[in-house]
Amino acid sequence: MHLEEKTLSSEMIFDGRVVKLFTDKAELENGEIVSREVIKHPGGVCIVPLDSEDNVLMVRQFRYPFQKVLLEIPAGKMEFGENPEECGLRELREETGCTCDSFVSLGRLLPTPAYDSEIIHMYLAAGLHGGTQDLDDDEFLEVKKIPLQKAVEMIMKGEIEDAKTQAALLKTKLLLNR
Amino acid sequence: MHLEEKTLSSEMIFDGRVVKLFTDKAELENGEIVSREVIKHPGGVCIVPLDSEDNVLMVRQFRYPFQKVLLEIPAGKMEFGENPEECGLRELREETGCTCDSFVSLGRLLPTPAYDSEIIHMYLAAGLHGGTQDLDDDEFLEVKKIPLQKAVEMIMKGEIEDAKTQAALLKTKLLLNR
Repeated sequence: MHLEEKTLSSEMIFDGRVVKLFTDKAELENGEIVSREVIKHPGGVCIVPLDSEDNVLMVRQFRYPFQKVLLEIPAGKMEFGENPEECGLRELREETGCTCDSFVSLGRLLPTPAYDSEIIHMYLAAGLHGGTQDLDDDEFLEVKKIPLQKAVEMIMKGEIEDAKTQAALLKTKLLLNR
Repeated sequence: MHLEEKTLSSEMIFDGRVVKLFTDKAELENGEIVSREVIKHPGGVCIVPLDSEDNVLMVRQFRYPFQKVLLEIPAGKMEFGENPEECGLRELREETGCTCDSFVSLGRLLPTPAYDSEIIHMYLAAGLHGGTQDLDDDEFLEVKKIPLQKAVEMIMKGEIEDAKTQAALLKTKLLLNR
């Protein structure tokens, strides 16, 4: 029971297209009753598409909560019944037009474990074959080709702030040791 | 106007202790009207407390949305009117008992920019001086001392999944080049 919290009740406050919001009552290890706000999210994937010259295909996309365009790696939300690898290959194709010869897991990322159940599955895609973007009707983004080393420098200088992009690109750098 | 989305209306659905939830209507660049679910969060900080032998002070803490204990770096939510550096020094002291001689920014992290306004400010704390933990009444956590190199290996093996912990420790490794 040390560190654990026991759920006493759970109420759904909002059931949206992207998130569900719950407020729970939970009992702490000292017997105190606290409220917990919990966002439920279907989870997503992100992909580092690396070409044969160590360029990463990245995307520029308007991020509504910040009211600005961010530079990120391709990513997307999982659809019902979809597994992470299928979702990753689909998002890679939709956002960059590419297929790939190898698709390797870079592990999982929990963006905000204090109050949100989202899990992002990270992948490294190599052996890229170009094609045509196939975006959803309400999706607008621009693809940018950026050398991996340059992207890592941008992260270190604070010019790339998205969490999945920082984690997946830094892991790629350490994994490939270049 | 390319890539941009124009807010037409915004309705607050929930006003909680940790998050606020809004549903907005926005107009895309092709004139289509879409709904946007937006979580607003006060933002937070995380700290890499690094001792003179390259050990990181980490914390084990129950994370309610995952119903399990995670290993993370110390972190916390900003309080009203607090600046990120003050918040970071306060959280370092509360969670580990330590003060520090140097406190350097590692940049910002946007955990989930698609639907959440949270910003996490990352810091590297060095020249640590030990003291006594000073937790909130409803806060339970254990401090663990882990060599930086070992923590990086745990990230690469998928044993540390928290986003801020991955990003801040990998940045620390690259920054210090060790």
